Amino acid sequence: MVLKFYKKELAVKMWKQAAEQIQPLSRSWLDRARTRLDNLTKPRGSLGSLEKMAERVVAIRQEEVPSLRKKEVLVFVGDHGVVSEGVSAYPQEVTALMVGNFLAGGAAINVLARCAGAEVSVIDIGMKEDLQKADGLIRRNVRRGTGNIAKGPAMMLDEAEKAINVGVEMAGEAYERGVSMIATGDMGIGNTTPSSALFSSLLPADVVDVTGRGTGIDEEGVKHKVRVIEEALKVNRASMKDPVSTLAALGGLEIAGICGLCLAGAARRMIVVVDGFISSAGALVAIRMNPVVKDYLFFSHQSSEKGHQTFFKKEGIRPVLDLDLRLGEGTGAALVMQLIEDSVKIYNEMATFEEAGIAPGA
Amino acid sequence: MVLKFYKKELAVKMWKQAAEQIQPLSRSWLDRARTRLDNLTKPRGSLGSLEKMAERVVAIRQEEVPSLRKKEVLVFVGDHGVVSEGVSAYPQEVTALMVGNFLAGGAAINVLARCAGAEVSVIDIGMKEDLQKADGLIRRNVRRGTGNIAKGPAMMLDEAEKAINVGVEMAGEAYERGVSMIATGDMGIGNTTPSSALFSSLLPADVVDVTGRGTGIDEEGVKHKVRVIEEALKVNRASMKDPVSTLAALGGLEIAGICGLCLAGAARRMIVVVDGFISSAGALVAIRMNPVVKDYLFFSHQSSEKGHQTFFKKEGIRPVLDLDLRLGEGTGAALVMQLIEDSVKIYNEMATFEEAGIAPGA
Repeated sequence: MVLKFYKKELAVKMWKQAAEQIQPLSRSWLDRARTRLDNLTKPRGSLGSLEKMAERVVAIRQEEVPSLRKKEVLVFVGDHGVVSEGVSAYPQEVTALMVGNFLAGGAAINVLARCAGAEVSVIDIGMKEDLQKADGLIRRNVRRGTGNIAKGPAMMLDEAEKAINVGVEMAGEAYERGVSMIATGDMGIGNTTPSSALFSSLLPADVVDVTGRGTGIDEEGVKHKVRVIEEALKVNRASMKDPVSTLAALGGLEIAGICGLCLAGAARRMIVVVDGFISSAGALVAIRMNPVVKDYLFFSHQSSEKGHQTFFKKEGIRPVLDLDLRLGEGTGAALVMQLIEDSVKIYNEMATFEEAGIAPGA
Repeated sequence: MVLKFYKKELAVKMWKQAAEQIQPLSRSWLDRARTRLDNLTKPRGSLGSLEKMAERVVAIRQEEVPSLRKKEVLVFVGDHGVVSEGVSAYPQEVTALMVGNFLAGGAAINVLARCAGAEVSVIDIGMKEDLQKADGLIRRNVRRGTGNIAKGPAMMLDEAEKAINVGVEMAGEAYERGVSMIATGDMGIGNTTPSSALFSSLLPADVVDVTGRGTGIDEEGVKHKVRVIEEALKVNRASMKDPVSTLAALGGLEIAGICGLCLAGAARRMIVVVDGFISSAGALVAIRMNPVVKDYLFFSHQSSEKGHQTFFKKEGIRPVLDLDLRLGEGTGAALVMQLIEDSVKIYNEMATFEEAGIAPGA
């Protein structure tokens, strides 16, 4: 309600307001959650990460009996000019083909979202192709693919801001629909390259430590990819002054959308489940804008993509799963949505020591 | 059908027949599963562990379209004479109180089994207390708690065999009810102590490397527990000649039940999801009886109990989750039941490249 300005104002700086709106987690709700968890019929803390998830959910939602009825995976789709440098195992056309697959319900994210009881929204935020037949596609194209970052900027500054705002808008619309838990998803052939570039610049880290095999290039391909990213960082150096200008320089549009989704999701006190490598790049941009956003982000898994580990180590984050996933689309996040929901059920449904007539132990 | 002998013959060696019945996974079904997984619309292997789980499920169930409709968590309950040595943070009475909680549906395993769509069966296999009012409790008590292993054997050899047979019988009954996926669960104050003793003897490993804090004893308590276990290993040395006699010497009854469940679950080609530290001890006894059983076991999580890591390292097993759980009851296994089901849905429901009109890439 407080956040109605999203609808009224379509200003370029809408994402800034979202970033400023994010509140630190309520200490009193955290304490309340901890007290209840410690009274449930189990040794204290014996449900490990599940308890920590429940604690955060309670503090985010600020409800006595938290409920996560409506869930949604938002898949942002963009293309990348840098694929012309030969950094990907798949041709660029696959982006559009996979969108068709998403809309037909046949992709991994469709299956795993069903498992989690979540809807899937597919957003064209920066596809090269203007799909004619694509029922259900949410059309918010900011530009038809990024520029080749090895030669210049991925996009203009105002395009980056517009793309972040698309994410903000999507979070707002989900909120209006009563969604309380959102997952970030991505599709875009070539998008590990801008993600690695962003990690290198924003963590910061050496390019080799954040660059991997993507969808399946070989060792030689990785070396080439490292050189391309180093070139991109050199070419764009002058324009990278802050998180937004860095994002504009290195791309991509789907990463910008994810950044906006994280910011506005947190501002509206939604549970934001972050998928893998690409989503973490978007989340990192959001964290650099306002570190408080971290309290609302649930990093779902450590991808097998080299560099993801570097991100988690540098940011002091422990992801929930480590299943060698490297698909994106929101697949890891969808799996963790289930675990978060399980943690909430533990919180709501377990008997307390008093109810069970047992004296609490250690 | 082949396995009807379970019903006919109640011989002490029934568990031996189960162990001998276990078949290695079918190579042709594994290949078939791999071929389909590689044809689904994702880069090869990009769903990591999920794909490996699906592969095994297909090879175990040997079905074109595998289905895991009925699921069940079997919680074996036993008491431990060794608690008189002061090795646990909770008094022995809690075993019976928690059984009441299980039957009332208020424990963590009840909640997480509901999340997984699984039934919970609670089996008194070795409780000290003979519960009068306990609707729904499955009564298969072999003896009223084990002996104090620091002073002598946990149980007689024929008692250990009977307890393993209870697990075999439970798997058989679940099979008859149409259950295709079972999870191992345990309850029994003090049961990390016999588990650590079994790990030390059967891996083998130094006692300190497999002994931890259980439900919450302090560092001094752990040192004492190590001494108690060393004493148990010394006192019982002469009688420990093979996996069964070792199990009889060190206990416990619920661990024996879990061992039998693993053997017979595998013999009947069920998916067997192994919970944490105590369940792994039972599974290890089964593995020492017939290593082929491993193909059917899905080790769900690495417990925060020290020593579990030693087990996984020595046995070359990678558990699915690492969430700092240390509750037992089958809670970690219930979480992983969901992930296994997700992996099966990926297998059954995703579109192939051909169906989606996409050329397979890397």
